Amino acid sequence: MTRDDVFAAQRRLAPWVHRTPVHTSRLLDRESGRELFFKCENLQRAGAFKFRGATHALLCLDEIARSRGVVTHSSGNHAGALALAGQLLQVPVHVVMPTSAPRVKVTAVREYGATISFCEPTLQAREETTRRILDESGGTLIHPYDDERIIAGQGTAALELLEQVPNLDAMLVPVGGGGLLGGTLLAVQGAVPEPRVIACEPEAANDAYLGWTSGERQPAPSGTTIADGLRTALGERNFPLMREYVHAVVTVSETGIEEAWRLLLERTKLLVEPSSAVPLGSLLEQPDAIPGKRLGIILSGGNVDLSPRR
Amino acid sequence: MTRDDVFAAQRRLAPWVHRTPVHTSRLLDRESGRELFFKCENLQRAGAFKFRGATHALLCLDEIARSRGVVTHSSGNHAGALALAGQLLQVPVHVVMPTSAPRVKVTAVREYGATISFCEPTLQAREETTRRILDESGGTLIHPYDDERIIAGQGTAALELLEQVPNLDAMLVPVGGGGLLGGTLLAVQGAVPEPRVIACEPEAANDAYLGWTSGERQPAPSGTTIADGLRTALGERNFPLMREYVHAVVTVSETGIEEAWRLLLERTKLLVEPSSAVPLGSLLEQPDAIPGKRLGIILSGGNVDLSPRR
Repeated sequence: MTRDDVFAAQRRLAPWVHRTPVHTSRLLDRESGRELFFKCENLQRAGAFKFRGATHALLCLDEIARSRGVVTHSSGNHAGALALAGQLLQVPVHVVMPTSAPRVKVTAVREYGATISFCEPTLQAREETTRRILDESGGTLIHPYDDERIIAGQGTAALELLEQVPNLDAMLVPVGGGGLLGGTLLAVQGAVPEPRVIACEPEAANDAYLGWTSGERQPAPSGTTIADGLRTALGERNFPLMREYVHAVVTVSETGIEEAWRLLLERTKLLVEPSSAVPLGSLLEQPDAIPGKRLGIILSGGNVDLSPRR
Repeated sequence: MTRDDVFAAQRRLAPWVHRTPVHTSRLLDRESGRELFFKCENLQRAGAFKFRGATHALLCLDEIARSRGVVTHSSGNHAGALALAGQLLQVPVHVVMPTSAPRVKVTAVREYGATISFCEPTLQAREETTRRILDESGGTLIHPYDDERIIAGQGTAALELLEQVPNLDAMLVPVGGGGLLGGTLLAVQGAVPEPRVIACEPEAANDAYLGWTSGERQPAPSGTTIADGLRTALGERNFPLMREYVHAVVTVSETGIEEAWRLLLERTKLLVEPSSAVPLGSLLEQPDAIPGKRLGIILSGGNVDLSPRR
């Protein structure tokens, strides 16, 4: 894959995605000693950058594949994003969700008109259910991140940020499965000037960090983190992109994530999901690991369950 | 006062205030059956529209008055806004605050470099302390809302909204002391087309509603409301503007305010203070009282105390 794949995705996506705004905060600039530019993908359709990749994947299908529909497994933003993309592009969407999925996510997917099949919350049940539905429907599997169409789509957020803010020294991106990270890495290659890309992840789910230092792709992390969207191993297609292009992988503690989340809410008045606070938390906790003055930070999503705790 | 006073304020303020963005939400449009345009004064400097009026008041002072400084009493956004305006324009600011003021507001005022005098939380103590400081300093009193310079300054938010969104049928504005309402009413006079202005307030603090229906200015309401910024009687200069120009005054229950606040956070990802949720709450609770399809809603501020409850 190259930067041209991301440019092609940008052209295809133009009529469908929001060009999200970039917010700044004088107070956060003062507190961090940098100039921070927050790319507000929490204001993207369906509330997360995932809408870019999901829509792009559907736009790449031929007519026959579109009519047969697509299948995915996700309990998170990818499911909602794909469901909305399917509604808009009139492609049937079938989502496999664990019975443990948050009700708010289930509701969103259903409201966007997707079909849901529930399965036990185990890897085996998920794979069996997905396989069965693929066989029955003849549909196409749209993996949440380990897919070139998805990676190219996610990279369009970084392309926009490059257009919106000149002369960035670095971009900070949360890393889970590596869809956003992979797309961002491709998007900046050859930009003038070319910002460094820093992958940020929770200490408690540091498979990207371990993979980066060891050179070996790691299994899904076992720790728990408030940034639950990042508890995913890097995909087969995503890991090599990280190895080749990333400047550094930086981790942040759970306390650091919570403090950064609250700072974002207080200072920028923006609601983001905890995963989106991971880059700012990493910067505040490990400033020496992150070079440069002008930093772009991708706020990946804003889907937070605000219902009272059970 | 006329619309020209607001235009004059806009010219003076141009270098100092943020031109705040307008946000929309397809989901809220669907839920309300209207087209809603949210003017994000929660993203204004110092976190509220109050920065417009406070800065304008300082810009209207002559050199001698500037050097002597200004005095105000406020436990809310006006204090923070005036403190920041004073810091930027190099005018000494003295704020009288009750000992009961939220610590987060006290900290903000102090960080902006203002002097604070604390008094007992009674009207008498506040007035005595303010009078004493005015006498000692020779400074100028800047009232939070009952002041033409303030009213003209607050109206610039509505002027901007008119520029940003054509063909509004109505503007919805929270009403407390009537600074924002008065300025908005002046700002829209003679606009083409001229939107109707709807004042929105909590049922539990319905002095504007009672004043509008009776024709008599009412004393400060005694009820308590989560929208504590609106627990103020209309000022002497503000009340006649409301009587002359407002299309309607609509009230909303406490539950309605809370639900609207949460909807704003979930749907627009924007943190606002409860007072800013009063217009949306009024619309959702009393849709028949609010005419028109394209509605501008001024989100007045975003200063929420996120520290744990004591």
